[in-house]
Amino acid sequence: MKYTEMNREQLIAEKAELDKRFNDYKAMGLNLDMSRGKPSKEQLDLSMDMLNDTDYTESGIDLRNYGIIDGIPSCKKLFADLLGVEPKNILLGPNASLSLMFDYIAQAYSHGVMGSTPWSKLPEVKFLCPVPGYDRHFTILEYFGIKMINVDMTPDGPDMDAVEALVKDESVKGMFCVPKYSNPQGITYTDEVVRRIAALKPAAEDFRIIWDNAYIIHEIYDEGDDLLNIFDVLPEYNNDDMVIEVCSTSKMTFPGAGISALAASDGNIADILKRLNCQTISYDKMNQHRHVKFFGDVDGIKAHMKKHAAIMKPKFEMVLRHLENELGGKGIATWIEPRGGYFISLDVMEGCAKRVGELCKEAGVVLTNVGATYPYGNDPKNSNIRIAPSLPPVDELDLAAQILCVSVRLACVEALL
Amino acid sequence: MKYTEMNREQLIAEKAELDKRFNDYKAMGLNLDMSRGKPSKEQLDLSMDMLNDTDYTESGIDLRNYGIIDGIPSCKKLFADLLGVEPKNILLGPNASLSLMFDYIAQAYSHGVMGSTPWSKLPEVKFLCPVPGYDRHFTILEYFGIKMINVDMTPDGPDMDAVEALVKDESVKGMFCVPKYSNPQGITYTDEVVRRIAALKPAAEDFRIIWDNAYIIHEIYDEGDDLLNIFDVLPEYNNDDMVIEVCSTSKMTFPGAGISALAASDGNIADILKRLNCQTISYDKMNQHRHVKFFGDVDGIKAHMKKHAAIMKPKFEMVLRHLENELGGKGIATWIEPRGGYFISLDVMEGCAKRVGELCKEAGVVLTNVGATYPYGNDPKNSNIRIAPSLPPVDELDLAAQILCVSVRLACVEALL
Repeated sequence: MKYTEMNREQLIAEKAELDKRFNDYKAMGLNLDMSRGKPSKEQLDLSMDMLNDTDYTESGIDLRNYGIIDGIPSCKKLFADLLGVEPKNILLGPNASLSLMFDYIAQAYSHGVMGSTPWSKLPEVKFLCPVPGYDRHFTILEYFGIKMINVDMTPDGPDMDAVEALVKDESVKGMFCVPKYSNPQGITYTDEVVRRIAALKPAAEDFRIIWDNAYIIHEIYDEGDDLLNIFDVLPEYNNDDMVIEVCSTSKMTFPGAGISALAASDGNIADILKRLNCQTISYDKMNQHRHVKFFGDVDGIKAHMKKHAAIMKPKFEMVLRHLENELGGKGIATWIEPRGGYFISLDVMEGCAKRVGELCKEAGVVLTNVGATYPYGNDPKNSNIRIAPSLPPVDELDLAAQILCVSVRLACVEALL
Repeated sequence: MKYTEMNREQLIAEKAELDKRFNDYKAMGLNLDMSRGKPSKEQLDLSMDMLNDTDYTESGIDLRNYGIIDGIPSCKKLFADLLGVEPKNILLGPNASLSLMFDYIAQAYSHGVMGSTPWSKLPEVKFLCPVPGYDRHFTILEYFGIKMINVDMTPDGPDMDAVEALVKDESVKGMFCVPKYSNPQGITYTDEVVRRIAALKPAAEDFRIIWDNAYIIHEIYDEGDDLLNIFDVLPEYNNDDMVIEVCSTSKMTFPGAGISALAASDGNIADILKRLNCQTISYDKMNQHRHVKFFGDVDGIKAHMKKHAAIMKPKFEMVLRHLENELGGKGIATWIEPRGGYFISLDVMEGCAKRVGELCKEAGVVLTNVGATYPYGNDPKNSNIRIAPSLPPVDELDLAAQILCVSVRLACVEALL
């Protein structure tokens, strides 16, 4: 029965039952973590053979020494194949694609984009942020004082009518996108949305889309989502320079000890290299070499990611089963069943998300800070909760998901009473 | 006999002899490189055992996963001991201290220093550059449009009378120093110079010294130079916040695959962490752990650096021997015999350095770009040449040093004729 259709008496009875369950969980004194998209120990163990590399040479070059700022050729090839671009359009980066994105925005701030006015010299700079989204994107923008404008996500990707209207404002300089298995909803942009993005006619010449392909090959099921390669479409609209794509092996091999890559047009690569030549002598080429030896080619990456999927799938299915069993048909929550990525996005009755977070915390379950999926930590509907099922062992996750569901029900009953 | 005391006839005879030697070298079709301070293969081989680490946990924490932005405690301790500061005053960085320095200047540019006006918002920002110095410091400053002011190096360190006068200008915001075995001269700042630096009273509150201790423990002889720990002295002058120190293992283990560290006051560390929390989730903790396991403690680093010294010493001695034999007493060149570091700095007769570079190139020896040791690539006396003896095998270095000496003599004779 839908909570919204219950009368006061029914709600009080429901609350009494939920209070009892909640207190039972609380009495267990748990300490469970569903806050961040961290791989589990089992997943990290999958890549230990990568560390057996002993011969760090390539084409006679000693990769242990200084140099090769754009990355070693074999590894550039690997990422070029993965991203569907030419090796000349790849720059290999540090251990985190987050730094690639931060440094790119920092560069636009101090030096502009391919000769444009530095953003620091402009009275106002705005970015479009599909919401809910990734908190660390928002943190970068906030650090540089860039005003964030929410754009609602639809099941197909960002609301493109809104995006097309907003880019007519010359102070709108860019947009952050997670186009495949978006964080946190797990939505993959449809071909039509990718085409409409590629066809944008922004007023600002220095408009740049940060295409954070963090979950490029992070399927949970045998049949993954297909994402149109935006670099195949951009030239049709003379927008070759509009997109900066990044990805990393953080969730393939080791978070914090993986490698990242950036794909962009010739012009953007040259622009970034100008800065990079001042910032570093090279990134970690030994680690690049390890990754090439370990994966071999894109098929090797795919085979490896199937091992990750085998660990992730039961976790996602367990959380989704609890959501269905506990919250289904009650009119108090909606969610999307993702086919990949690291998160499940749960929208609870408006005004209740923060209370869910409090209740979970009280019962020993840490969620991502409620609100973090929106710019400035401000979810205007106080509705969205990001669930990260990857880290806990299955038995802990089982409990955590139940506690989450009871907390959602309790928060909604409280609100209705 | 001094070239300057030769008459025209003697110079012509000398030139004829040198031309013959030069052409003989040229006919060998050599391709020798003394341009950059790259360790040799033998040196890189010294650290291969570092790669045998297999257990990446510390205090029960899985270092393969996300997190620990400031670095793992054991590795912070190692660098704290090396630099003579508390672990809380250490941040571990990426694979290159160059990035630590670039990112710090970038932060001051966009956000100021501990609450000061961002440097990007000021009409002019200047930095003091002891010369000759390290080209990559100058490149960072030039990238950010910071005006560089030359300060002459003396055998004791930078000319402190000049520095003390220049910091009275409020637009002078900092200074780059390589205080031990300076690049390129190999000069270690005396205690008095370090004290005078620590005691500076700059007009700018946001004045920052980048203390690039790149050769902190890179001795060539058993008896190395002693550098006063500036962090021990700063508090005496209430200047705790004035210095940002960096170092790295690039020339201890693997260039490009080592780790870097930054030491600074509590206030500076907090200031940097604000940015770092937006820029990355952590640096490579697996690599930090490898370094700790490999070195153990500072004594372990010292023992390891003795192995480097054993390889470097004969190379330095060979170059110095050739300089003495070929250029000694001719009144056309001066140099310093460094007791550590990676370079020998050679000052030839004014106006001749570029010609020496051309002649070397013609005979197949690549030197560091002549002029690179000065801001804007402009050596006002066209006199300084940086010799990097580390990379070539001894037999190649033997030839390269001879060719360099002949080229110096030839260039000077040409100039005198």
